[in-house]
Amino acid sequence: MNKDLFIDVGSQLAHLRMYPVFDTCHYLLTALQVRDDIILHQSGTHNFTRRHPLSCWLSTMLLCFSGSILANFLLGESPIKDFAHHQHLLLATVCWYLVFYSPLDLVARLLRFVPIRILVGVAKEIQRTKKVFDGVHSTLAIYPDGYVVVVMIAAIKGCGGSLMSSIDRFFRGVWLPGQTEFLFPSFATKASFISAIIFVLEHVQLIQFERELVYLCVASMFIYVRVITIFFKQYDPLMPFENISSGILFNSWSETVSEAYRRATAASTTSGTSNTSTQQQAAVIPAALTPLTATTTVISGKKEANNTDGQGKTLEIKKRD
Amino acid sequence: MNKDLFIDVGSQLAHLRMYPVFDTCHYLLTALQVRDDIILHQSGTHNFTRRHPLSCWLSTMLLCFSGSILANFLLGESPIKDFAHHQHLLLATVCWYLVFYSPLDLVARLLRFVPIRILVGVAKEIQRTKKVFDGVHSTLAIYPDGYVVVVMIAAIKGCGGSLMSSIDRFFRGVWLPGQTEFLFPSFATKASFISAIIFVLEHVQLIQFERELVYLCVASMFIYVRVITIFFKQYDPLMPFENISSGILFNSWSETVSEAYRRATAASTTSGTSNTSTQQQAAVIPAALTPLTATTTVISGKKEANNTDGQGKTLEIKKRD
Amino acid sequence: MNKDLFIDVGSQLAHLRMYPVFDTCHYLLTALQVRDDIILHQSGTHNFTRRHPLSCWLSTMLLCFSGSILANFLLGESPIKDFAHHQHLLLATVCWYLVFYSPLDLVARLLRFVPIRILVGVAKEIQRTKKVFDGVHSTLAIYPDGYVVVVMIAAIKGCGGSLMSSIDRFFRGVWLPGQTEFLFPSFATKASFISAIIFVLEHVQLIQFERELVYLCVASMFIYVRVITIFFKQYDPLMPFENISSGILFNSWSETVSEAYRRATAASTTSGTSNTSTQQQAAVIPAALTPLTATTTVISGKKEANNTDGQGKTLEIKKRD
Repeated sequence: MNKDLFIDVGSQLAHLRMYPVFDTCHYLLTALQVRDDIILHQSGTHNFTRRHPLSCWLSTMLLCFSGSILANFLLGESPIKDFAHHQHLLLATVCWYLVFYSPLDLVARLLRFVPIRILVGVAKEIQRTKKVFDGVHSTLAIYPDGYVVVVMIAAIKGCGGSLMSSIDRFFRGVWLPGQTEFLFPSFATKASFISAIIFVLEHVQLIQFERELVYLCVASMFIYVRVITIFFKQYDPLMPFENISSGILFNSWSETVSEAYRRATAASTTSGTSNTSTQQQAAVIPAALTPLTATTTVISGKKEANNTDGQGKTLEIKKRD
Repeated sequence: MNKDLFIDVGSQLAHLRMYPVFDTCHYLLTALQVRDDIILHQSGTHNFTRRHPLSCWLSTMLLCFSGSILANFLLGESPIKDFAHHQHLLLATVCWYLVFYSPLDLVARLLRFVPIRILVGVAKEIQRTKKVFDGVHSTLAIYPDGYVVVVMIAAIKGCGGSLMSSIDRFFRGVWLPGQTEFLFPSFATKASFISAIIFVLEHVQLIQFERELVYLCVASMFIYVRVITIFFKQYDPLMPFENISSGILFNSWSETVSEAYRRATAASTTSGTSNTSTQQQAAVIPAALTPLTATTTVISGKKEANNTDGQGKTLEIKKRD
Repeated sequence: MNKDLFIDVGSQLAHLRMYPVFDTCHYLLTALQVRDDIILHQSGTHNFTRRHPLSCWLSTMLLCFSGSILANFLLGESPIKDFAHHQHLLLATVCWYLVFYSPLDLVARLLRFVPIRILVGVAKEIQRTKKVFDGVHSTLAIYPDGYVVVVMIAAIKGCGGSLMSSIDRFFRGVWLPGQTEFLFPSFATKASFISAIIFVLEHVQLIQFERELVYLCVASMFIYVRVITIFFKQYDPLMPFENISSGILFNSWSETVSEAYRRATAASTTSGTSNTSTQQQAAVIPAALTPLTATTTVISGKKEANNTDGQGKTLEIKKRD
């Protein structure tokens, strides 16, 4: 009985019409995100939103339709194909105008009010799930066996905004190459890829559940994290899994073993050295990832010096950004 | 009679063959523009044009064919499709060579001589009008109702060069994200969009004039501004309209009202405060555009401090560029 | 007899299957190149490869398939079309994993061992030749007369990696606009273009040799330079030809003449001036490339000042990079 209820809810979710309501929520939140980004990175330019309305509009439109633009581009079609229907562009423009220039800043304030934020956020996540799901099935029609392409396109439809954020900032005259989505993927990006994979697995029947249940699960996962994120900033349920898998896959159990071995050897040979030397040793070992691993202490010391320089450079880069 | 004459002139303008003469003017001016940009931004690299001929050539070709490249890309076709016919590329290469490396720098000097500059400039504007017009009608054949796409493609065919200037500079090793066309659109860009809209309106018969007359008007507008710009730098007839519409659409009549109200309240409550405080108040109000508008003076003061920091950052950014 | 032997070798080379062995060599070397680039530009971020595996993977995949991605994009097709077949992506991922995270860094060390480096390098060059050759003939099927497009696409298939290096670095959060391939083209890029031209000339029968011989010559040229480069860094057999042609085409024989003339005039008119003035004169002349060439010494002096400023700016830019 209970399962039937869930299937029913999932089926209703999957067949909701996105156009007027859910899309509006997506456009409103995207416009708010652009505005926050302007406050964050361009507070120096006084009255940026009024001096450069074209730049703000373009930037918002790019983010609102980023999924469709990127997916069309990657499929070799016209990136602006979806602008042939005007109502979406019109709706997005209205949302942009309301968020940026409403009297007394009413709309932006409302959107920052927590209950409304949750409601709009939930609607956006429902739309995201639908986009990923539709992305999987429309791409499967083109590449029936190209699962990599299917996952890529479907995930991009769900998280285009975060992938485009660098280009989007460039449209507003800001260029931050050190903060790309590829270096620090957000939860939305990772979850879009995972959902796309889940939908594909369901399609090839490696996941033996009802499609509606799978859909409901993915949607609830998105909604759950969205709601949690509103209360606690920077919540990422994937973090522990990443840390473990990074430890197993990329981290150096071999490195750890060789490190322990070297430490033991170092202890037996230079047992009389001062404390500072040991400390240096400890600091050096993580630097030994470069292939021509230092075997003598002298080279290690040189390495460490290089590394320190390197860190100084990074700090400088960060300062510059 | 007079009208017939105008229609005749417009018709002749619209049926001029572009290929050898008008295209040459476009290529010559574009190459000169690239060269001026090199002098402006890369005067530090001694003899840039001779050390990096490949970079100069690529950069010039990109600007010469930017309209066609961008439009083809946005329509989902091969961006280099138009290079399949060699004569255009060959002609552009000859123009590039003459402008960059002619003996005694003859061609570049001639092109900077005012009467020739006017003549070549007029030819370039005639070519631009033709490109926008052709762009409208060739795109209408693909998207008969997608007027947004039609305007976009047609305008880009007319002003591709200015939109591509950032990428073009990147080909020469210069990267100026703070000077994109989207932040500071040039007159050519704005006029291309307006002309594309006019041609579309004429097509759907919302403008009830003869097509030739409309064509002539648009062409004269381009030519007029081009000639004026040669004598007075930075002439933009759209500026007053922009200022008015920006005031009505984006500017804060509501803001002005609330500001006046706040000022009145501030005057009545803190009538005894010193002059410096009032000055601070005045400086604070424009900063109150951020949504969480400060209601207490303490927070306002903090905001102002932030704002000052922000401005400092901008100055730094500008200095860095 | 001897010729028949060569033809036989060329024919066998041209019909080698690339998939498992030669592609692996290409992927391994590309991954190693990405890793070296990370050590060069991102040594500051401690443990970059382990902290940002996604960024490393994406960056490596982009470089491994850059030729196919760029060529598909320029032909107006789906850039990710070739990912529809999974085995290439899988193989490249395995190679990436081995180079970046193998125990004791074994694979990367082996690849840096000279004999193996030569072997793998030779295999990569054989693959490159095959790619250029296939590129020419597959593009000729689409544009039978568009030789410019054919050369472009075929060369990009051979040297996509170097053209994409800027975007590739951007994926890892590094942005170096002053080091694009267009400013400092590598030998691989230039040789790919030359080979593409040779293959096209052979196709239109302007080169009257057997196809297999031409293929063998091009492949040997690539292999020869690769082997030489392993022993002597920065070997470029095209450099002397470039210097000569740059002298003839772009350099200023006219400039040299006018300079000599000006020098003579300066000597006759200001024969009594001090040595410093002459030195200034000598320094000024190369600055006289800007079209509005200074005719009086006063303006020249001003120019020189400008130039010095410009050089300071460049130094600053370099420092910033």
